[in-house]
Parts: sequence; structure tokens; C-alpha cells
Amino acid sequence: MERRTGIIAALDTTNALNIAREIREYVDAFKVNYPLVLSEGISVVKELSSYGPVIADFKIADVPHISAMIAEIAFENGAKAVITHGFTGSDSVKAVLDVASRYNGEVYVVTELSSAGGQEFMTGVAERIVEMARNLGCHGLIAPATRPERIRKLRELAGNMQILSPGVGAQGGKAAEAIRAGADFVIVGRSIYEGNAVENARLLAEQLKEVI
Amino acid sequence: MERRTGIIAALDTTNALNIAREIREYVDAFKVNYPLVLSEGISVVKELSSYGPVIADFKIADVPHISAMIAEIAFENGAKAVITHGFTGSDSVKAVLDVASRYNGEVYVVTELSSAGGQEFMTGVAERIVEMARNLGCHGLIAPATRPERIRKLRELAGNMQILSPGVGAQGGKAAEAIRAGADFVIVGRSIYEGNAVENARLLAEQLKEVI
Repeated sequence: MERRTGIIAALDTTNALNIAREIREYVDAFKVNYPLVLSEGISVVKELSSYGPVIADFKIADVPHISAMIAEIAFENGAKAVITHGFTGSDSVKAVLDVASRYNGEVYVVTELSSAGGQEFMTGVAERIVEMARNLGCHGLIAPATRPERIRKLRELAGNMQILSPGVGAQGGKAAEAIRAGADFVIVGRSIYEGNAVENARLLAEQLKEVI
Repeated sequence: MERRTGIIAALDTTNALNIAREIREYVDAFKVNYPLVLSEGISVVKELSSYGPVIADFKIADVPHISAMIAEIAFENGAKAVITHGFTGSDSVKAVLDVASRYNGEVYVVTELSSAGGQEFMTGVAERIVEMARNLGCHGLIAPATRPERIRKLRELAGNMQILSPGVGAQGGKAAEAIRAGADFVIVGRSIYEGNAVENARLLAEQLKEVI
């Protein structure tokens, strides 16, 4: 089976809808985070989903009944997937998965953040989090493009789960390196939407084709 | 100096504004979480703040620049405090603190969740998270009423930081036990707003007066 790779556009920008419409042919999904959703309202998820699959990057990190409520709101507003933290423990992740299954939705679990601080408390438990996510039947993982050696390590434990890799561009990670290390998709924000978004997305998509 | 204790009402309910108005004389602050804010819009924070201080329980858990954006939205909409996770590392917590200081706002750091899963990955690093929060100058901690022995342990390390303790009532924790273990405030949700909210809040406030 041919390996599949691609781009997830992180739309942490007020101009998200216009950019999504412009770049949709070059990207596989759109990722939205709280700054956009809190500013524009949850309806932005549904609006964006008319241009492609939306991943609600709510980094869910609460007790099970609240985590489930947050996931429910994401899916009922048209999200295809949610991102949850794993360090909160298996009961919270399972609560999110239970909601997702009712919507035929997907759940991606953060292993360690792409920021430097992600190494302070998360790197030490990231491998156990991968194991938990795999055992629960999660769809994928979030692993940092800023530390490709960590993607490589977590890839070994990830089984069939997909790896989405943020931290490309402004945070210092390189898309090609992340893919070579084992990421399936790179998550790219500012390097797409700052400047000429269409041209940035087109070039990145071309670049990725040459990697695998 | 007399020890100060009290109640924070967690308004994880669609009827939040009415309940806040009814119970305000018995509680010290209102805590709002994403389910309410995503359903009602961020303006609910400002509306609630007319009845008392609002703690935005956004359990911020992202890379620094996104964490800062989330905190900014909370404070500019009238929140008095935000709740952030600590396991994301010191750079994210510091980013939130920097925003808070511009609003004269407060930052509370989650040590370990009150749910059972909170013990899987968080309990093992909770003491280091307390140390980090204290060194950064955070205002307080979130520690679980469901495990008073953990409140007692974290209290020893907390210095002058306040401890807010969720998990009282529906989750099985007992307010008096949490206070005796060292919590300054108990966070109570369903045990207040399910049933007669005014009577529930009044009785709880009376009960707490007898504890210290």
C-alpha cells in the first residue's frame, strides 16, 4: 500500500474561512484551535467543514464527563476529529472516544507538545501515552516536528495509528524531516497563512511529494 | 491572620446566569468551563462577572503562543482568573502568567485531575508541578478533593499559593475533608446546581464555617 502523506493547515488566524477556501486543494484537513473558536463562535467549525475535514484542536484535558461534553460540542458542530491530551489518563481519553464513535469521528492524542516545555513533564510519559492510546483504539497521535528523533521513537510504538506533527515552520520544525521520521501529516500554521497562503501551501505540497 | 475559606461554584450548566444571580451571596467566585462557553459564547464570562469574580477554567494546555492567546481572550472578557495545566511545561505557564499580569489577573495551575485517571500520569509529576508553579509566581493550585491525602502533600509544598479543590459532591470528594487537608476553596458544581441551588449553596457555606 502506498504511503499517504499530506498537510493539515492550522488556521490560528482571524481570516480562517477565506484562507481555507483558497488553499483547500493543497491541504488534507483544517485544524482549528480555541483562539479562533472563542473569537468567532463554535459555528466556525461548521463553516470551515464545507471546505474540508476539520480537526478541533481543543487539546481536551479535563475529567471524563467534561471532556465528553467538549468532544460532543466539537462533533455536533461538524468536526471530523478532535485532539485530546493523553496525560489526563485513560478514563478521559475513553470518554472522548465514546463520543467520537457515535459521530464516526476520530480522536488524536497529544504525546508531547512541540514547545521546549513539552520536554519537562511530557517526554517522560509520552511512550506510555502512546501505548494507552493504541490500547484504547485511538486513531492517531500528535508528535512534535521540532524533535524528529521523538517522532521516530514514538512511531515505533504507534502501531497503525497515524502521526500528525505540529511545530513545522515558525516553531522551527521541518516538514520533510518530520515525514522522514515517521509522521503521516504535518500541521502547518503561520508558514502557510502568513504571506501568500496559496503559494505557500502549493510549494509545501510539492515539497512533500518529493519526500516519500 | 484568620484563615479564609469558601466556595467556588462550577457552573457547568446551561442555566448558569440565573443560578449565579441566585447563589452569589453564598459563594466567592464562579468557575466556567468550555461546555458553557462554547455553547453560549465567550460573552457569558462578562455577563457572569457582574455577579462575582469569574474563573475561566479553560485548562489551558497548549504551546506558549496559543496558551497566551487563550488567556488573553479570557481576561479581556472579564475573567478574574484562569486555570492552566502545568504539565505542558514552564514556558506555557509563564506565557499565561505574562498575560494575566497585564490584567491584574490570577493563574491557577492544575496539579492532578480529580478523576481516577488523574493518577495515571499526573500524580507522579504533581509535586514537581507545584514547585514550578511556586517558582513562577502563580497564584494557586488545583488539587483533588477526591484524594485529600494528595491535597495534604501538595499543601506542604505550596508555600503561599492558594489551593482550590474540585471533585466535591458528585465526584465523591467531601468539602470539609478537602478544607481540613489544606484546601482554601472547594469547587462545587452539580451538588449546588442540581436541585435547589440556593438551599444547597447556603447549607454548604454554613457547613464550611464550622470546619475552620
